[in-house]
Amino acid sequence: MAKSRSDARAASRQEPRHAGLAERYREVRRATEALAEPLSAEDCTVQSMPDASPVKWHLAHTSWFFETFVLEAGLAGYRPFHPQFRVLFNSYYNAVGEQHPRPERGMLSRPSLEEVRAYRAHVDRHILELFDHAGVEPQADTIELGLHHEQQHQELIVTDVKHMLSLNPLRPAYRACREMSEAEPIASRWHRHPGGMAMIGHDGGSFAFDNERPRHRTLVEPFALASRLITNAEYIEFIEDGGYERADLWLSDGWDAVHARGWRAPLYWWREDDGWKMMTLSGARAACGNEPVCHVSFYEADAFARWAGARLPSEAEWEIFAAKAPVAGNLLETRVLHPVPGAASGSDLPEQLFGDVWEWTRSPYAPYPGYRPPAGALGEYNAKFMVNQLVLRGGSCATPQSHVRATYRNFFPPHARWQFSGIRLARDGS
Amino acid sequence: MAKSRSDARAASRQEPRHAGLAERYREVRRATEALAEPLSAEDCTVQSMPDASPVKWHLAHTSWFFETFVLEAGLAGYRPFHPQFRVLFNSYYNAVGEQHPRPERGMLSRPSLEEVRAYRAHVDRHILELFDHAGVEPQADTIELGLHHEQQHQELIVTDVKHMLSLNPLRPAYRACREMSEAEPIASRWHRHPGGMAMIGHDGGSFAFDNERPRHRTLVEPFALASRLITNAEYIEFIEDGGYERADLWLSDGWDAVHARGWRAPLYWWREDDGWKMMTLSGARAACGNEPVCHVSFYEADAFARWAGARLPSEAEWEIFAAKAPVAGNLLETRVLHPVPGAASGSDLPEQLFGDVWEWTRSPYAPYPGYRPPAGALGEYNAKFMVNQLVLRGGSCATPQSHVRATYRNFFPPHARWQFSGIRLARDGS
Amino acid sequence: MAKSRSDARAASRQEPRHAGLAERYREVRRATEALAEPLSAEDCTVQSMPDASPVKWHLAHTSWFFETFVLEAGLAGYRPFHPQFRVLFNSYYNAVGEQHPRPERGMLSRPSLEEVRAYRAHVDRHILELFDHAGVEPQADTIELGLHHEQQHQELIVTDVKHMLSLNPLRPAYRACREMSEAEPIASRWHRHPGGMAMIGHDGGSFAFDNERPRHRTLVEPFALASRLITNAEYIEFIEDGGYERADLWLSDGWDAVHARGWRAPLYWWREDDGWKMMTLSGARAACGNEPVCHVSFYEADAFARWAGARLPSEAEWEIFAAKAPVAGNLLETRVLHPVPGAASGSDLPEQLFGDVWEWTRSPYAPYPGYRPPAGALGEYNAKFMVNQLVLRGGSCATPQSHVRATYRNFFPPHARWQFSGIRLARDGS
Amino acid sequence: MAKSRSDARAASRQEPRHAGLAERYREVRRATEALAEPLSAEDCTVQSMPDASPVKWHLAHTSWFFETFVLEAGLAGYRPFHPQFRVLFNSYYNAVGEQHPRPERGMLSRPSLEEVRAYRAHVDRHILELFDHAGVEPQADTIELGLHHEQQHQELIVTDVKHMLSLNPLRPAYRACREMSEAEPIASRWHRHPGGMAMIGHDGGSFAFDNERPRHRTLVEPFALASRLITNAEYIEFIEDGGYERADLWLSDGWDAVHARGWRAPLYWWREDDGWKMMTLSGARAACGNEPVCHVSFYEADAFARWAGARLPSEAEWEIFAAKAPVAGNLLETRVLHPVPGAASGSDLPEQLFGDVWEWTRSPYAPYPGYRPPAGALGEYNAKFMVNQLVLRGGSCATPQSHVRATYRNFFPPHARWQFSGIRLARDGS
Repeated sequence: MAKSRSDARAASRQEPRHAGLAERYREVRRATEALAEPLSAEDCTVQSMPDASPVKWHLAHTSWFFETFVLEAGLAGYRPFHPQFRVLFNSYYNAVGEQHPRPERGMLSRPSLEEVRAYRAHVDRHILELFDHAGVEPQADTIELGLHHEQQHQELIVTDVKHMLSLNPLRPAYRACREMSEAEPIASRWHRHPGGMAMIGHDGGSFAFDNERPRHRTLVEPFALASRLITNAEYIEFIEDGGYERADLWLSDGWDAVHARGWRAPLYWWREDDGWKMMTLSGARAACGNEPVCHVSFYEADAFARWAGARLPSEAEWEIFAAKAPVAGNLLETRVLHPVPGAASGSDLPEQLFGDVWEWTRSPYAPYPGYRPPAGALGEYNAKFMVNQLVLRGGSCATPQSHVRATYRNFFPPHARWQFSGIRLARDGS
Repeated sequence: MAKSRSDARAASRQEPRHAGLAERYREVRRATEALAEPLSAEDCTVQSMPDASPVKWHLAHTSWFFETFVLEAGLAGYRPFHPQFRVLFNSYYNAVGEQHPRPERGMLSRPSLEEVRAYRAHVDRHILELFDHAGVEPQADTIELGLHHEQQHQELIVTDVKHMLSLNPLRPAYRACREMSEAEPIASRWHRHPGGMAMIGHDGGSFAFDNERPRHRTLVEPFALASRLITNAEYIEFIEDGGYERADLWLSDGWDAVHARGWRAPLYWWREDDGWKMMTLSGARAACGNEPVCHVSFYEADAFARWAGARLPSEAEWEIFAAKAPVAGNLLETRVLHPVPGAASGSDLPEQLFGDVWEWTRSPYAPYPGYRPPAGALGEYNAKFMVNQLVLRGGSCATPQSHVRATYRNFFPPHARWQFSGIRLARDGS
Repeated sequence: MAKSRSDARAASRQEPRHAGLAERYREVRRATEALAEPLSAEDCTVQSMPDASPVKWHLAHTSWFFETFVLEAGLAGYRPFHPQFRVLFNSYYNAVGEQHPRPERGMLSRPSLEEVRAYRAHVDRHILELFDHAGVEPQADTIELGLHHEQQHQELIVTDVKHMLSLNPLRPAYRACREMSEAEPIASRWHRHPGGMAMIGHDGGSFAFDNERPRHRTLVEPFALASRLITNAEYIEFIEDGGYERADLWLSDGWDAVHARGWRAPLYWWREDDGWKMMTLSGARAACGNEPVCHVSFYEADAFARWAGARLPSEAEWEIFAAKAPVAGNLLETRVLHPVPGAASGSDLPEQLFGDVWEWTRSPYAPYPGYRPPAGALGEYNAKFMVNQLVLRGGSCATPQSHVRATYRNFFPPHARWQFSGIRLARDGS
Repeated sequence: MAKSRSDARAASRQEPRHAGLAERYREVRRATEALAEPLSAEDCTVQSMPDASPVKWHLAHTSWFFETFVLEAGLAGYRPFHPQFRVLFNSYYNAVGEQHPRPERGMLSRPSLEEVRAYRAHVDRHILELFDHAGVEPQADTIELGLHHEQQHQELIVTDVKHMLSLNPLRPAYRACREMSEAEPIASRWHRHPGGMAMIGHDGGSFAFDNERPRHRTLVEPFALASRLITNAEYIEFIEDGGYERADLWLSDGWDAVHARGWRAPLYWWREDDGWKMMTLSGARAACGNEPVCHVSFYEADAFARWAGARLPSEAEWEIFAAKAPVAGNLLETRVLHPVPGAASGSDLPEQLFGDVWEWTRSPYAPYPGYRPPAGALGEYNAKFMVNQLVLRGGSCATPQSHVRATYRNFFPPHARWQFSGIRLARDGS
């Protein structure tokens, strides 16, 4: 992320911000590789749909990011690992040049997983060289961006592998995950807010994506936010009440999607004689009632909310509460890789705000007032996607804890279901 | 549009609101038929794309609206004109029942245009019967809604006919239109606003669609709005500066649309040796430099704005200025059926706010805070489309003057180009 | 159809062949117009699928054929009726130039039906001028070809109108047709042939298409041909025996078509409580048991034959018998426009060889040994379609009697169903 | 392939026919595995298009064939290696049951290549058990069929790998192949045949596929067959003469394919400043002039022949000459994996009849007179594909020598290009 001169000056005043960056670099890179460990080279090669990418591609692209935006820019005399990787592992940066067509990432049996690992090692060696030679400061912000970028791809590795394995009739597991015992149902309550002027967005004191800025005032009307996420049991009620057959519950485009795509339940669910089953990363099993529902689209979340006599929150409404809550929950580090039932607590804040599932909001993904994308290629990181998508908040069981925060804005098109995306209700009036 | 009890009471207090409703009914219905007069039965039968409908279908569907929502509900013993028209001319009201598939409206050579005219006469006769027998009051709001609905279809008749004729290599004209002389170029100025809390939306004192309500406070940051619309000459500069070849100017989905659809200029434009030509409703001619550009998508409007170092306005920003301006301009009644060059005026308000072209805003089409759709089938009128569309404001040369107002929210998907849609710029800071 | 010099000499020796050509011209042209008489201008404008054309297009294209291949070539100083019709009404003659895209023929509300009629009259006037001024001889073969071409389009008018009306939920009739009383079922017998060398193809003594030539020897093994066509009752047995659910009965591409297109019965059939119904040109009615089944694809005909323990005939096998039979039957002139039950007769030849339905053969459409397409644009008439199609023989209830003969080769892709196409069985061994 | 009783008796009389079957089994199976040796597990997982399959799938499917049709039928108490492989590796045998969807074969990262190798070993162990225990005779014909089936898949492994590697911008090689020096051009001559009655098809004295039988008489008119294959140099002449731009050279469906698929040259060719380049299995290189052209569709072969003033041979014409020639040439065993230039020889038979490239014929793939498919699932092997395909003859550089013969009928749809398919000309008249 190119910084303007005044930003750079600001950064130099905040030097401690980059302390430990080398260590963090090592940790994040290692964590990515750990995710690939349970997988064979074959597992890492398949692309299950155009929206998903092979794990091998994720491993290479995240290295390409450091190579392109840090090493080529900042390390004198750096020679790229392979001259064609610039195109092969460019995701969508037109300013960098051509891209290998996204739907054909799964056609690449070469480079091999082994070669991609060598690529990673090559990039790591040079990045650490940068650190060791005091020259890192001008690139530190970009390295930090690269690490957050890599953490986004950690989440995508998890969700893309899940999708790929789900297409295999052998129903393989990614790995045995920590089993959760079925919890007692807990009641949902409303957390009220009187409305008024509020500040949202990131203040720039630490790392944040450009789309979280600038921090700005916003106006909310009185509202209430549900204390917990919607569960499988509640979603099954919606299904059994004919939720997927009642046009009046759906947005028009959602109703079209239900028919065009044959939706009758969340992604990865199927019905057997003794109830609803689902694919998880540790294999097939029953849909436990008290687990948060996930793998629903915005259209399904919106229809459910209408059925329940409520609505989805706006991103401002969500952030107002989340800003007061600790960033903790069932995130990637728990290694559960599936949402878990909420626990009853006496908190005066909503539960499960972070982790478990990304929460669909009703907010179209749009620039904040006064938003300016960074100059150069990194301006493409977020800005060019600000149409036709909805904001999701809070992180999921596949999101690294050090990656998420209250101001974090995730975004997906309204039909997307392969992320761990779920539902929290809101309503008007305090 | 079903009204709650308090609304009904409000309505009775406002009785004069319905005064003249019968006269207005006659006028609006007559105006629709006048639009079809230059067309043959064959012209009225063709459907040029799934988004457009045959004129015959528009003529029938607007009658179906009165038959279904007024006569069947409100006229005891009313017998529908034809038992199958309930399905055939239902556009998208799932609560009314099945619909003839939209892309197949052009397969219907029967009923003939003559029969459709008989259908219109039949419905008119019974509606006027309602008026004559004092029974109209409970249905008055629905009749008013039906008239505005019909005026929306008047605009669609114009734009759908234009699209249909444009596909014909004979380049036929709809009718000779009043010729406009080429005007002098006028400079664009910025109208500044200091930002702050503002009220937008309709207060319910007269007719408005449900999506314009409730009137509510909103927060705007300091901004400026351009004094006039972008012209063909300015848009040609954008084209000649490589506007359609520079990825950095476009939203990612817009860039995809440019390539998938092969866009190189606005819809209906083509290049000849001596410059850009365009299809108009009075035939092919040169693209006059000072006319407002039209038939551009949101993606093109957005890319143009970025190229120009500006942005599109939000709907609130537009409405704050428009609320002070008279609803007047190059609307359907001028019978020009094409945007005309703006005139220099000393006004302290922006020009061309109404008429000429619908102005793309950057605002996703979403419910206003506290919005509730009407109960029943008419709840489908607007609410179910509140995703994946952008708001346009101001009306066009195909919009009836009595149909538009400052709070009016039109909406189309970002790739739509066959409406008279154009560009007004805005920028941050006052 | 350009003729070589020796052909031309042959033609001049056969002068009587052209006697009455003017009269025949008038008759054929009148017959085409008569087919359009029950139709409105709207009926004549709609294109119901890319394979079908609007009636207006058929009326114009057949005139284009005479204008392009007779008048422009043979009438000094002839000025085309309209400069753009050369492109607009060119079907597929690349040598003549560009063509209006086939799937967009239904976009053309102009020229109007009235103008197309004027176009026909204009062409007729000039063709008859040719006749009156002794200059016709060099063009006589092409005129004869043009008349047969027009008769092909007479059949297409009938089948395309049927398809168009079938898409209209009002189920309109083309016209009241002569009602047929339900006949007694008659048994099917086998007509045996010992095999051996046989001559097939046309000898050139009168008009024939180039694809029927040259007459040549062919070898057939002993075989038998069924005495009559397969009836609806027999086909219903196939359906009720699970014909559409048994993969073993189908060619692989046929089985794919069954699933991709959702076939469960012939085109235009649907099931009601009291049995199978069908659309006919005189409206909806029951599928009478003893009528020949029609509107089946080659795939269905082939699967039926396999189910019946038989096979489809080759075109040579069919022609060997048909060459001895009179060209008579339920052809266009009966005005029934639907296949009729066969009558028991003591004939030693198969019945129903001509008329009722085109009979699918197992013969891929390919050139006869020694076949040479005509030089010039008319070489495109038949030759370029000699792949991916199957031959059908015998004419249907929509084929003019003077158009068909024993050597006539019709051809359609194996999935086509909108022609009056049916089934006659054959088997190996005499 | 189930045999009738009399066939079985015939087989027992021909016992020596099965002598050495066990040895042949070992050889063929080993040869398949040798083809996979230069490939990584990743290479073996990718499916590059629906027509092609992953190598892993080929390795498993050929084993599935023996398991399903030999072991399950003939080895008492045999337990399948994996219960789901019956579906997963069934290609198209509806009589065996469900099939994993063909286009999703590349989604299967599991079973791993290692597991598939274990599957092969398991099947081999049990097949050899059959041989060792004298019980092989009833299954011997099916084993022989299975070996020819496996050899067909050896060819597909080669062509599918080539297609997969061609999509990789790194242009990887499958393996270094024996280099061929550029040869002198040799002239093409015509080998004449006087026409008449001839016998073609297989007499059943040794292995042949059901579609090669019965041997039967056929009639050919006088013709001539070219002495050699068309070369790259000749094909480049066609390209440079505007071959791909002249509609008059093409079948109508071929012309459509040229435009829809953007064909300008054979598959795997591209143009550089210094001439045409091509992908081969040993990497990218120039298109050598005297090599036979390959990777052309039937449409291209047919258009080339028309351009050259000739035509493609029928399969009978080809077989009449080939029946007299030894089955020898540039086949799989040469390990060149690419067609090689022909050598001048004084032979009175055409050259290059076997190997190098499959030669497109003009013959639609259809049953021979009196053909009956085998009973049971193996009846699906060939019979159900007898429509919409053309016959190719002679084998290619990827065909095992022991697999091909003069009566062998290969078949592909007219647009297929990824096989080693080329052109030999024929003409009418002796």
